[in-house]
Amino acid sequence: MTNQAVYYQTVSWNNGKVRLIDQTFLPAKLVYIDCDTVESLWEAIRSLRVRGAPAIGIAAALGVAMTAVQSVTTEREAFHQEVLGAVEYLRTARPTAVNLFWATEKMKKKLQALAKEPIGEVRQKLLQEAQEILEEDRRTCRKIAEFGARLVPPGARIMTHCNAGGLATAEYGTALGIIFRAHELGKVKEVFVGETRPLLQGARLTSWELKQAGVAVTLVCDTMAGSVLKQKGIDFVVVGADRIAVNGDTANKIGTYNLAVLAQYHKIPFYVAAPWSTIDLSIADGTQIPIEERAPKEITLWGGKQWAPDGIGVWNPAFDVTPAELITAFVTEKGILRPPFK
Amino acid sequence: MTNQAVYYQTVSWNNGKVRLIDQTFLPAKLVYIDCDTVESLWEAIRSLRVRGAPAIGIAAALGVAMTAVQSVTTEREAFHQEVLGAVEYLRTARPTAVNLFWATEKMKKKLQALAKEPIGEVRQKLLQEAQEILEEDRRTCRKIAEFGARLVPPGARIMTHCNAGGLATAEYGTALGIIFRAHELGKVKEVFVGETRPLLQGARLTSWELKQAGVAVTLVCDTMAGSVLKQKGIDFVVVGADRIAVNGDTANKIGTYNLAVLAQYHKIPFYVAAPWSTIDLSIADGTQIPIEERAPKEITLWGGKQWAPDGIGVWNPAFDVTPAELITAFVTEKGILRPPFK
Repeated sequence: MTNQAVYYQTVSWNNGKVRLIDQTFLPAKLVYIDCDTVESLWEAIRSLRVRGAPAIGIAAALGVAMTAVQSVTTEREAFHQEVLGAVEYLRTARPTAVNLFWATEKMKKKLQALAKEPIGEVRQKLLQEAQEILEEDRRTCRKIAEFGARLVPPGARIMTHCNAGGLATAEYGTALGIIFRAHELGKVKEVFVGETRPLLQGARLTSWELKQAGVAVTLVCDTMAGSVLKQKGIDFVVVGADRIAVNGDTANKIGTYNLAVLAQYHKIPFYVAAPWSTIDLSIADGTQIPIEERAPKEITLWGGKQWAPDGIGVWNPAFDVTPAELITAFVTEKGILRPPFK
Repeated sequence: MTNQAVYYQTVSWNNGKVRLIDQTFLPAKLVYIDCDTVESLWEAIRSLRVRGAPAIGIAAALGVAMTAVQSVTTEREAFHQEVLGAVEYLRTARPTAVNLFWATEKMKKKLQALAKEPIGEVRQKLLQEAQEILEEDRRTCRKIAEFGARLVPPGARIMTHCNAGGLATAEYGTALGIIFRAHELGKVKEVFVGETRPLLQGARLTSWELKQAGVAVTLVCDTMAGSVLKQKGIDFVVVGADRIAVNGDTANKIGTYNLAVLAQYHKIPFYVAAPWSTIDLSIADGTQIPIEERAPKEITLWGGKQWAPDGIGVWNPAFDVTPAELITAFVTEKGILRPPFK
């Protein structure tokens, strides 16, 4: 018998609204919310109710489609302004994940390509385009999982960071997709995940997804990563990505860089799993990736309590850049690749 | 004008009781508690109300003295049994920090050396011995600070981990002692400290101590250590120690090993500051250091809320071992040293 996992619809189109799992409630509760304005969707992206590079892209594309569907104007110029306004506005929600820009750019191009069609047609075709972005992501994750599962030895012990699972994509995931597929093939012994401070996506989301799927998962603090790699017989580390430069430098959740340096020190392979759309062909290397810095209170306030004194400095970058030299290979829907990407 | 810091009496003798700062209330409140039984002192050590290798040693020595002072027996054999019972009992509070064993061993040897003196005399001399351990630690920290401050360049940017400050010693600290002394000499530009999950000693204690002393301190999550070392112009990393083997392998708060690997990758000096009593001359290398593993709920429950799903594995080692090869030098009261130690 193969192991069969359970999956959720992280982002979906629900009768004119964008339906999301509100991930800030996990793991305590599985709560779906319907965003019926671009403002509420923007807030959901900014507040990490929906997060993960592919999921953000899908949510934004659906948000652009929602604007088109909701528009009541019969003036083409006004209609274009409304839709392009949504594109520009949603792009300001978060700066690092390239999928947000890639997906909204796809919607913008579709709008431009349909410039001569009746507005009613355009509305429907923009919705189809957004739904196709979602379906494409679903297929992409399965392909990444298939390619990646070939890298997994029997009885594998794997380490991951943050959440690159079904909750970060349409479903199934990138890094976790590989683990789910390897688990379906009976090859996974144990997965270690760092809790991923400050927002604990590893503790809250990844350990929840792995447990739902019946994968043996052990949670540690990020401080314990070195000890895990040294003592727990880890075969490889696999993480997702928010933006990959042409030379392979990779922005991903803060702490990924720590883990990559530690993996190299312990001579453990370090894989990045991501759709091709995460590669930003417009930038040569990681120095050009904008890194979001978030509010100090994400670190100092937790569970309604203040854990650090007032009046100190706090630095809260949400991502870091792992240099390509520390990444063994990239698992994409096009196969297992090495940079430079073209 | 030199910068003048503020210091606290972390552990002291208060009229027949052992007075401690209850560090679990920091940074919200500065609370002193008086332990008047070895059981309450054992609980205070186990629960990290008092923590830090030197402070634990001092507290345990005072606890042994308290047992002697409180004893009402006039039978020498019974008196010895009571005092030795306290020694053995307090040693079970935590396994990793060698100072607990070193300080209680010192008390035990003193008791044995006084075998022929009147019990009343012995009580007073055991109390003097414990107070001398405290005073010795105070002097030791100042010497470590003097030696260490020589390593600090003007305008220094320093990174530390956990708390090796006044709160981890009688006062002033080891790693933070160096920073305080360098600050008094006007040489410190900025200190970065990792919050130190799971128990946040960096956020709660170190940033509080540095702020009290007027040192510019910036708090980050442990996941951000790599980014700090890469981007913030750090001159060196300095940490404390819980036990050092003859070859220089060093047990310290979990996450120290991550930081040492990251420092090596970034070619940044990595110093360990500790009293000579932290060196365990009975063990050749770090493989022989017992590593305390603590309760899963320290990771999963925080601020009264559960952050991870039920039914997953959790691994919570409180310390890790940094191999000597990653440590640039050891700052002790005997000077700046390199292993092997004799």
